Amino acid sequence: MNQVLIDGQWDDAPLARDRGLFYGDGLFETIAVIEGQMPMLELHLRRLKQGCERLYLPPPDEALLRDELMQVAASGPSPAIVKLIYTRGAASRGYPLPETVKARRLLYRFDWPSHPSDWWRQGIVVRVCELRLAEQPFFAGLKTLNRLEQVMARAEWHDTAIQEGIMLDQQGKVIEGTMSNVFAVKAGELSTPSLEHCGVAGVMREKVIEITTQKGIPCHITRLGLDDLKQADEVFMTNSVIGIWPVRDLAGTSLGPGPFTRELQSVVSQFVSRHEVSHI
Amino acid sequence: MNQVLIDGQWDDAPLARDRGLFYGDGLFETIAVIEGQMPMLELHLRRLKQGCERLYLPPPDEALLRDELMQVAASGPSPAIVKLIYTRGAASRGYPLPETVKARRLLYRFDWPSHPSDWWRQGIVVRVCELRLAEQPFFAGLKTLNRLEQVMARAEWHDTAIQEGIMLDQQGKVIEGTMSNVFAVKAGELSTPSLEHCGVAGVMREKVIEITTQKGIPCHITRLGLDDLKQADEVFMTNSVIGIWPVRDLAGTSLGPGPFTRELQSVVSQFVSRHEVSHI
Repeated sequence: MNQVLIDGQWDDAPLARDRGLFYGDGLFETIAVIEGQMPMLELHLRRLKQGCERLYLPPPDEALLRDELMQVAASGPSPAIVKLIYTRGAASRGYPLPETVKARRLLYRFDWPSHPSDWWRQGIVVRVCELRLAEQPFFAGLKTLNRLEQVMARAEWHDTAIQEGIMLDQQGKVIEGTMSNVFAVKAGELSTPSLEHCGVAGVMREKVIEITTQKGIPCHITRLGLDDLKQADEVFMTNSVIGIWPVRDLAGTSLGPGPFTRELQSVVSQFVSRHEVSHI
Repeated sequence: MNQVLIDGQWDDAPLARDRGLFYGDGLFETIAVIEGQMPMLELHLRRLKQGCERLYLPPPDEALLRDELMQVAASGPSPAIVKLIYTRGAASRGYPLPETVKARRLLYRFDWPSHPSDWWRQGIVVRVCELRLAEQPFFAGLKTLNRLEQVMARAEWHDTAIQEGIMLDQQGKVIEGTMSNVFAVKAGELSTPSLEHCGVAGVMREKVIEITTQKGIPCHITRLGLDDLKQADEVFMTNSVIGIWPVRDLAGTSLGPGPFTRELQSVVSQFVSRHEVSHI
């Protein structure tokens, strides 16, 4: 019997028996569409490929996936977001991998979120989350569908004056934001937390490291404490949709957008919506 | 636009936009149906309720859920398995909880798995998994939809002579099996790992603790190392479908079903299929 009783109705929806739903057995990517293009696509595809290798997931046919991503990107106006979910597909009960895996691709188009441009210009207010990230080197860096930690960390606050929360690991070291990565600038040098034990390696994080490395500025990938952030000259947070947001208040400590952040913003502005950057 | 491109086909399947799929934002239960009844149902409902509280999920209407579980249990022959998935329902993009959550219930009926009765009688062969469980006290004990660790641990071996794998935490202490809990018997006393930092508190584990406590036998919920298992008089593994499987070989160390395990098996045999126990 393939019927599933969903909210009281018998249903044969194939997705009801997908390992993505059963176990979070898959990966996802959130891709910015700017003027009809996906400027960060290569970084997204690279991370997806790394995730497939780690999870023993058969990788997608890349040409087919690119065609589908373009199809979804072109199905409405820019800027927009294309979300890709890539699962291990049809499930029977139980954890063992199916003998034959037919991975499933789900592609979504979302409207661009309307963030106030102040967040790009003047910076955001950031709190520190109580929920601490578990350390799991096996999945560290990947964007798997197991994201309950981020969900529950983001559920800690309702104050709309706070835009993001810093997440620490079990030792109290800084790892990332709930939906972003974090960088600190001190004496002209850049640092960002190592994601060897936990955390998601965002594509905008990769891009920032790439840009600064090309400029000959070292980016230290290291262990950072909250004090390292509070005593930094500048702190900023990144993701593929927001680009770069300066932090102006970190749990009560005032910071401000500085020249390092401003210069990086001007470089990455090509990868994010003009909606975000129009007022600089 | 509510259409999602699924494997190349536009689709408006509601489950494509469920937070269970997006983030593993939900819980599940795997419930044995024996002679048309669900003898462990109360323990499952209790764990589900605890999970809802922890995840700020609105709990299901219990009378409605019981009706639906009975409906699905009765939709085919016994023994069978009813699986319940309970998610935070419809998702937009992003981690913040929806302002109004309409949790979703998915109920499945599966055939009873045909395990050789030898596993119940003579015991199983168990290896030690390389993947170690992350320590996340916030979710410890719960059966959330974030189960990639179990998936990848179970993917470590293909040898059909091995029935289960022991999972350790990051410190190397024993926590559980990939799909079961573990107990050790030494000098007439019972021990099982504490699940304060990670692991799933199985309902059969609860039942075993309840049974032994009622008999006046203490069950020590404690930290256990692999050596504690190897030097035990008896080791057994439990879940709500298999009941109790003695361990006869733990990573090369021979053990055997002993009187303690046998007595517990005779008590819990009322909760599992006669298929499992018919040859004792």
